[in-house]
Amino acid sequence: MGADLAPEEPAAADAPVDPSTGAPGVDAPRIEAAVREILAAIGEDPDRDGLVQTPSRVARMYGEVFEGMRMDAHEPLSVTFGDIEHQELVLVRDIRFHSMCEHHLLPFFGTAHVGYIPGARGVTGLSKIARLVHVYARRPQVQERITTQIADALMEELRAAGAIVVLEASHMCMSMRGVRAEGAQTVTSAVRGILRKGTTRSEAMSLIMRG
Amino acid sequence: MGADLAPEEPAAADAPVDPSTGAPGVDAPRIEAAVREILAAIGEDPDRDGLVQTPSRVARMYGEVFEGMRMDAHEPLSVTFGDIEHQELVLVRDIRFHSMCEHHLLPFFGTAHVGYIPGARGVTGLSKIARLVHVYARRPQVQERITTQIADALMEELRAAGAIVVLEASHMCMSMRGVRAEGAQTVTSAVRGILRKGTTRSEAMSLIMRG
Ligand SMILES: Nc1nc2c([nH]c(=O)n2[C@@H]2O[C@H](COP(=O)(O)OP(=O)(O)OP(=O)(O)O)[C@@H](O)[C@H]2O)c(=O)[nH]1
Ligand SMILES: Nc1nc2c([nH]c(=O)n2[C@@H]2O[C@H](COP(=O)(O)OP(=O)(O)OP(=O)(O)O)[C@@H](O)[C@H]2O)c(=O)[nH]1
Repeated sequence: MGADLAPEEPAAADAPVDPSTGAPGVDAPRIEAAVREILAAIGEDPDRDGLVQTPSRVARMYGEVFEGMRMDAHEPLSVTFGDIEHQELVLVRDIRFHSMCEHHLLPFFGTAHVGYIPGARGVTGLSKIARLVHVYARRPQVQERITTQIADALMEELRAAGAIVVLEASHMCMSMRGVRAEGAQTVTSAVRGILRKGTTRSEAMSLIMRG
Repeated sequence: MGADLAPEEPAAADAPVDPSTGAPGVDAPRIEAAVREILAAIGEDPDRDGLVQTPSRVARMYGEVFEGMRMDAHEPLSVTFGDIEHQELVLVRDIRFHSMCEHHLLPFFGTAHVGYIPGARGVTGLSKIARLVHVYARRPQVQERITTQIADALMEELRAAGAIVVLEASHMCMSMRGVRAEGAQTVTSAVRGILRKGTTRSEAMSLIMRG
């Protein structure tokens, strides 16, 4: 079990669950007060009809979009099927994901393609691959880190013989502000183990690109 | 000049310009303090490398995505060309826009289609139509209000004989949280003046839908 699979932010565990909103692990009253401050600071009236509920909605929203911080990254890959004999690539393509850019707190979203070659612990459930993506995406993140974390989890947790992860995403922080580069896509990849080598690597890539 | 074209949030004018960030009209230090609060409240460490600059980036981001609050909604349509004789529909289709949902402070974005039949003040510059969309979109908003405000501005400011406005948008608050309705599009429209009547209305609609 790799040390870098331990929760990165142990502080998260201390964050209280707010019973009124049910938002797990976020301090809702503290977020609400901060959002009222932001509304006033941009020159809005936090008490006008359309905004009066905004602080509590944003608190619930953060509880949900950052739920990955409170999820156990070990859990999805703890399920394996010893009775399935398969030594070739297993690829789950086009997993839609949403994340939040930790630099601007604006969404980025797109698709993840995740493949692995089974190793010592065999194969896992297909849905567990998608769950793994969500555990890492639903946090304040950068795209490269999600990509790396998924690949490392497959290698360390599932003891895969090889892993390949490609993420394609649009970043709102690039389209709605700053350079305003509409339609730009960011592509990141991580390749591990026996998939690093020549033909298997390019074969996996072409299976991903077929999508 | 219609009363509802006056700035809706007079408080905005009082918001100071922060000289260090150049973010117009937002109180950057106040936003920065609030964003640090939010990062702590979700269970993050606001001092870790990737987050230490986030409060100031978010302050600049809000200055930019809410810049419409500080813009004069009368300005775009103040430009008219008396020498252009044209009594038929002028339609600007597929104006890409970005806005922020005032309920969740998450982006929504898509395209605006704006048409009008020139009236007492004649025609305006084509780019001014796109500017008008941005003045109203770059605020905390709901899609219906942007749609209505654009149509009303054309009628009152430009003294158009008719106006038609259609907005098609994706709301991140519907895709990344809550119902998680991926790919859902919200379409809103506003029709005014002589465009309300039978054939001109359906003709304008079909010109919009051709896009
Ligand atoms: N490598 C990488 N960079 C990212 C991600 N998200 C994200 O905002 N960035 C980048 O982080 C950088 C932050 O730069 P900055 O400190 O100058 O902030 P800024 O808002 O003024 O930058 P900008 O206006 O160029 O976007 C930007 O280049 C932005 O594009 C990501 O997931 N991966
Ligand atoms: N008509 C309209 N509704 C909007 C816009 N933006 C936006 O968030 N809404 C809606 O505002 C409502 C807020 O509802 P709510 O107070 O129950 O907040 P919530 O976050 O718990 O609702 P939700 O989970 O159903 O999205 C939601 O139905 C949301 O879809 C918009 O531009 N126009």
